[in-house]
Amino acid sequence: MTDLVFLGTGSGIPTKYRNHPAIWLRHEGEHFLFDCGEGTQRQLISAGLSFMRIRSIFITHWHADHWAGLIGLLQTMNMENRKEELHIYGPDAERFISDILDLDYWGVGFDIVPEDVPAEGDGIHSVLKTDEYEILSTPVEHSVPAVAYCFRESDKWNVDIDKATRLYGLKEGRLVGKLKEKGEIKLGPKTIRLEDVGILKSGIKIVYSGDTAPCRNLERLAKDCDLLIHEATFEEMQENRMHAGAKDAAQIAKKANAKLLILTHFSRRYASTKPLLDEAKKVFPGTIAAEDYMLISLSKGKIAVRRV
Amino acid sequence: MTDLVFLGTGSGIPTKYRNHPAIWLRHEGEHFLFDCGEGTQRQLISAGLSFMRIRSIFITHWHADHWAGLIGLLQTMNMENRKEELHIYGPDAERFISDILDLDYWGVGFDIVPEDVPAEGDGIHSVLKTDEYEILSTPVEHSVPAVAYCFRESDKWNVDIDKATRLYGLKEGRLVGKLKEKGEIKLGPKTIRLEDVGILKSGIKIVYSGDTAPCRNLERLAKDCDLLIHEATFEEMQENRMHAGAKDAAQIAKKANAKLLILTHFSRRYASTKPLLDEAKKVFPGTIAAEDYMLISLSKGKIAVRRV
Repeated sequence: MTDLVFLGTGSGIPTKYRNHPAIWLRHEGEHFLFDCGEGTQRQLISAGLSFMRIRSIFITHWHADHWAGLIGLLQTMNMENRKEELHIYGPDAERFISDILDLDYWGVGFDIVPEDVPAEGDGIHSVLKTDEYEILSTPVEHSVPAVAYCFRESDKWNVDIDKATRLYGLKEGRLVGKLKEKGEIKLGPKTIRLEDVGILKSGIKIVYSGDTAPCRNLERLAKDCDLLIHEATFEEMQENRMHAGAKDAAQIAKKANAKLLILTHFSRRYASTKPLLDEAKKVFPGTIAAEDYMLISLSKGKIAVRRV
Repeated sequence: MTDLVFLGTGSGIPTKYRNHPAIWLRHEGEHFLFDCGEGTQRQLISAGLSFMRIRSIFITHWHADHWAGLIGLLQTMNMENRKEELHIYGPDAERFISDILDLDYWGVGFDIVPEDVPAEGDGIHSVLKTDEYEILSTPVEHSVPAVAYCFRESDKWNVDIDKATRLYGLKEGRLVGKLKEKGEIKLGPKTIRLEDVGILKSGIKIVYSGDTAPCRNLERLAKDCDLLIHEATFEEMQENRMHAGAKDAAQIAKKANAKLLILTHFSRRYASTKPLLDEAKKVFPGTIAAEDYMLISLSKGKIAVRRV
């Protein structure tokens, strides 16, 4: 199960109801943050989420509404005696993190590890990979270097016990676990391979655009994703601002064959998101509008939306 | 009339109900901010106060909970096309403001003027003075250079019309206005001086401690003030943290002969401020506890407390 909480769904200027961008993501006990606008630590606290368990933070770009919450969050982690490393990813992360750490009377008692993410070209980059998941990035089109991120749960084999019993006489038990772990086992003279008796369960895929004009790289990154979280600052794209409109986001979702589109990063001019949703749904009916404290729970083929 | 709004009454780590320190002050159409913790712009917006009309910001010290809101506030002022100068006061302000402006992709379209405030010695310094008011500072005792501020409305003469008529035959009208403005007027052969027919109305005085251990400088700055706003992070002072306790704040208020003491900057450990208030009231009965969005309206001899 993967849970996401929208901590801020506004844009550059917050409102009473929408803070600056930040998305908390938990996958099987590991906690991540995507963007960290001003006030994110308080949003985490208000949502009852642990800021101490966050392992890695992924910044899409260094406009203040996407990162200014780092200062307070780092200070609070420090006051709470954090000892674990914290990895902060983003374009040119090393320079920005170094400048941030020069700013305050810190005495930071834990390692902050900056991780530079490429923000040029049309590549898709693996920025963090474990057996359980991979986090990918791709450059997007904004007024400053900016990237989108993808959280991709690893595909997993389940053993089809009926088939394994029928073909090899293998029954539920320790050997099945070993087969899933090793990929093959010996049973008497026979070698049983996972792909002969298994069912491949593909992992969930979530893509977050950050700030971007409509963008081919993002469309590729979002291919067949379960959830595309896309900015929709205005109803229609405003060329000079390098932001997508709701309609553009819907077109990306459609082309990428996404299952669900969630719009976010709304300009404060929209007290209601209805005009944005109306625009998007004409192109991509499976669209919803994010709200602060919206909780999304995803497993393959199942998405639940509620509030924390 | 002078209005104050507490925008944040928590300390280093915010809670759902208390943001980081910031106090908005309006005096006769001029707007000021004292400290600017993370999230202050959103607190201003939620309180329905204008961030664009703020002329000067007074930072007590450069711990992030007292200044990290500057980044977002400056960015927002810039996005809203501010053109007026903004003065930012604080110890070593020039260096800190320069470091903050190095941080982001700004392109700031208005002048940000740093104003260094002395943070050593036992002096009381005039940092801003007009005919209407003066803002004073004095160094306080914290783990980093820190100051307290005082807002002092100028004393004003009112003309005692009965007396002026009796002594000089002067009646209500244009000449009375001229007398108040110039200090003296000629009426036929006679010279009327304001001090002969006037009543001196002393201006209100408000003092804000910032973070400090109990401190003699602050006691002097707060002498005979109408309102002392003092930090009370804990019930009792914790030596190593260089914060005052509620009891210490009350002792300062008593020694300074303050009229009202408002405690603020509470540790998040206090879901209720009752234990802090109980401690303080034993020493100084005229004590209240600040809450976020508390609005204080002051004129001489009159203080009203409500919520925005």
